[in-house]
Amino acid sequence: MKAKFITLDGIDGAGKSTNLAVIREWFEARALPVVFTREPGGTALGEALREILLNPATHAGLRAETLLMFAARRQHLEDVILPNLANGVNVVSDRFTDATFAYQGGGRGVETADIEILENWVQQGFQPDLTLLLDVPLEVSLARISASREKDRFEQEEADFFTRVRTVYLQRAAAAPARYAVIDSNRDKAVVKAEIEAVLSARLLGE
Amino acid sequence: MKAKFITLDGIDGAGKSTNLAVIREWFEARALPVVFTREPGGTALGEALREILLNPATHAGLRAETLLMFAARRQHLEDVILPNLANGVNVVSDRFTDATFAYQGGGRGVETADIEILENWVQQGFQPDLTLLLDVPLEVSLARISASREKDRFEQEEADFFTRVRTVYLQRAAAAPARYAVIDSNRDKAVVKAEIEAVLSARLLGE
Ligand SMILES: Nc1ncnc2c1ncn2[C@@H]1O[C@H](COP(=O)(O)OP(=O)(O)OP(=O)(O)O)[C@@H](O)[C@H]1O
Ligand SMILES: Nc1ncnc2c1ncn2[C@@H]1O[C@H](COP(=O)(O)OP(=O)(O)OP(=O)(O)O)[C@@H](O)[C@H]1O
Ligand SMILES: [Mg+2]
Ligand SMILES: [Mg+2]
Repeated sequence: MKAKFITLDGIDGAGKSTNLAVIREWFEARALPVVFTREPGGTALGEALREILLNPATHAGLRAETLLMFAARRQHLEDVILPNLANGVNVVSDRFTDATFAYQGGGRGVETADIEILENWVQQGFQPDLTLLLDVPLEVSLARISASREKDRFEQEEADFFTRVRTVYLQRAAAAPARYAVIDSNRDKAVVKAEIEAVLSARLLGE
Repeated sequence: MKAKFITLDGIDGAGKSTNLAVIREWFEARALPVVFTREPGGTALGEALREILLNPATHAGLRAETLLMFAARRQHLEDVILPNLANGVNVVSDRFTDATFAYQGGGRGVETADIEILENWVQQGFQPDLTLLLDVPLEVSLARISASREKDRFEQEEADFFTRVRTVYLQRAAAAPARYAVIDSNRDKAVVKAEIEAVLSARLLGE
């Protein structure tokens, strides 16, 4: 198969990191080449920008933050995503542009059209082949997060913020069903795992 | 007078820093409120991004670099330029968007139309009231720089790079003479000073 670009997205605590392991096993079981990466991050530039965004001393307003996200993404595409795909290596990213639409757009209010301008500037038409949207009700993700670790900056924000984020993710998936698979992550891990495996087999291998 | 936004631009070594002092004296002699700032920089975010751009370990490609320049600029507008103007304080910036058109555009090849998209995204129509373009032949600026200090990353690049940069500056000034004043900086400092003072008096005070 031609190398594919697969993204995992969803609200904080939806199970992205957990299910990256599922995807890794699926590729390894088939001896298919794959690399795993994440946003923001995935390059030295991205990690440096991630630090800046998390540091209150270097305050970035909403529009500057959105530009930084896309700067990191551009470098991530140039250095990691596109070269691997060109070499026949599948790429799986923990978050991608859907997160900008969901967080900076739905969560914080940047206009969809404004995000699309930057998406186009940076990606020039490039899109994931498959986006696995892990979906859980807000209460479930909050309970999982608070059971497992400290809250970070985004997680301190309001419940209605995450509700807006989740809504944008679901709207985007509904608008482009060929690209997205919405995975109900509010089920036993084993059940989620089985569904992700089935989606990968169907969407990537036509099985 | 309504507070004005004045930018100083031109190739490396054209005399921007030198003539900021001239502008400062002009404002102080008239007891007009003024703040001085610079790009990239001018905010904590901008300074952090400037460090990233100068650090080879966090390599930013051309398009990522351009996005970072505009992210810094957006924060600079929000935190420094617009609030001061709103408070009646004139703002003078050592470099602004003309530098992106000249360096990332003319120098490195980002399409003008692509830079205009980001300019519009970030500035939403906002422009300097007056841009002083300090113009010198390349050989003069190089001679001045090498006499005065170490070369930095940009200064090591090719002469034809700076020739393209200078050309874009001059083209932009020629296309919008109401906004620009081209100052021939290849003259004695005292002569340049007198011309800048005359331009400020004419353009800002109608004298
Ligand atoms: N199906 C599930 N059932 C129960 N708990 C789960 C399930 N999936 C993930 N979790 C748990 O929820 C917590 C958050 O999961 P995970 O870290 O994978 O989410 P995430 O989407 O990567 O979050 P973040 O956006 O913060 O990185 C972890 O403790 C994980 O073990
Ligand atoms: N009219 C002039 N005649 C002779 N030397 C000058 C003149 N103007 C500036 N210089 C000298 O040229 C050198 C570069 O000037 P300056 O630092 O002001 O340029 P700049 O445009 O700020 O450069 P950079 O883009 O690197 O910040 C300095 O040593 C300065 O003293
Ligand atoms: Mg995670
Ligand atoms: Mg200077």
